Amino acid sequence: MSLLYEGKAKRVFNTEQEDVLRIEYKDEVTAGNGAKKDEMLGKGRLNNLITSKIFGILKQKGVPSHFIEQISETEQLVKAVEIFPLEVVVRNVAAGSICKRLGFEKGHTFEEPLLELFYKKDELNDPLITDDHVALLNIATPDELSTIKNEALKVNAVLSEVMNEMNLILVDYKIEFGVTKDGQILLADEISPDTCRIWDKETQENFDKDVYREDTGSLIDTYETFYKKLEEL
Amino acid sequence: MSLLYEGKAKRVFNTEQEDVLRIEYKDEVTAGNGAKKDEMLGKGRLNNLITSKIFGILKQKGVPSHFIEQISETEQLVKAVEIFPLEVVVRNVAAGSICKRLGFEKGHTFEEPLLELFYKKDELNDPLITDDHVALLNIATPDELSTIKNEALKVNAVLSEVMNEMNLILVDYKIEFGVTKDGQILLADEISPDTCRIWDKETQENFDKDVYREDTGSLIDTYETFYKKLEEL
Repeated sequence: MSLLYEGKAKRVFNTEQEDVLRIEYKDEVTAGNGAKKDEMLGKGRLNNLITSKIFGILKQKGVPSHFIEQISETEQLVKAVEIFPLEVVVRNVAAGSICKRLGFEKGHTFEEPLLELFYKKDELNDPLITDDHVALLNIATPDELSTIKNEALKVNAVLSEVMNEMNLILVDYKIEFGVTKDGQILLADEISPDTCRIWDKETQENFDKDVYREDTGSLIDTYETFYKKLEEL
Repeated sequence: MSLLYEGKAKRVFNTEQEDVLRIEYKDEVTAGNGAKKDEMLGKGRLNNLITSKIFGILKQKGVPSHFIEQISETEQLVKAVEIFPLEVVVRNVAAGSICKRLGFEKGHTFEEPLLELFYKKDELNDPLITDDHVALLNIATPDELSTIKNEALKVNAVLSEVMNEMNLILVDYKIEFGVTKDGQILLADEISPDTCRIWDKETQENFDKDVYREDTGSLIDTYETFYKKLEEL
């Protein structure tokens, strides 16, 4: 079936069912909005396995997503949604861009999870936006945004608990949402070490893409270790 | 009396009354967070006269400020307030940073005034922040922020009407707020062509600091013309 969309880490295809898409996870890894780029054999498989597992856990805990089922090592079927051009970032601990942007020390724990919105627009470099900008840019209605924020915080509650059981800290993550033809807002895209920052509770060692961003270890070994921990749950 | 604070455009002094400060407007002009900098003889006088006049109009229209009275060509007395480290920007028409940041065309008119908040912190380059950041950074409580936003929009209603009478468009402006010892939130700082973007209704000619930022005319002549129009009201 025809390729609908190709992103940095995934290809999206039509299927014979109008409301079902097939996602193929690629072995490509990028950082800094594409400034750093490499091929990593096995990354597509790991992110597909991890995302499938996590969307399964979320479903069990009452957080629906576009995920239907994993169909191969690198592919999954998902419900067709129109993606909001919005990166929803939830932060439990300060790391990455917020340290430079607002002066927080890396490792500073927020009393409440902090939710930030970024406008998905490569040519603008995905700028931080406010709720007012979301309305102004017709990204989502206030009601849709409210649903998106509630779901994003539910994801945080579930995943923080899961990571805690794995002796890990969910530092922050980026998620995306979409809307089905009949107006249901669903968590979409992926949840993997590509889109989360995850630290070892004791050593603060990274189990995420920062090992690639900062050249501090093997991305594949790190993702494989994380996947094994997740499987042992 | 002793100098309390010296900024790019003003000096603030104590007076014999604990709750009164004296502000002296300087002839210095800067742009790009201090990257461009010049001495402009007469600028301090013009901004003091203009700000005094505008704060007077706002008071008449029910918007209180820290302004007490103009005491010389370059000085005014104001109520002592602790300034929130917050730049409150209200935009009626897209110009300046929002065009580059969010892709709006210069001159695009917003259906509703757009309010944006920036964290006043030179070393961070005054980043855009959200309501959640305001709380997180202890800049203001949600109640204080709500008052600040309401007052900022009242200022917009009054000033847009005033500019309209002058055949001008109030494109955007930056204001600051402070809180008195007894907890009253007051509009503070200045309102002048340094802090507003003002266009001629017909020709879109600038009556503001953009003539300096973009080197398109004499700042002093421009401010003097604006002041005369204001006096003729």
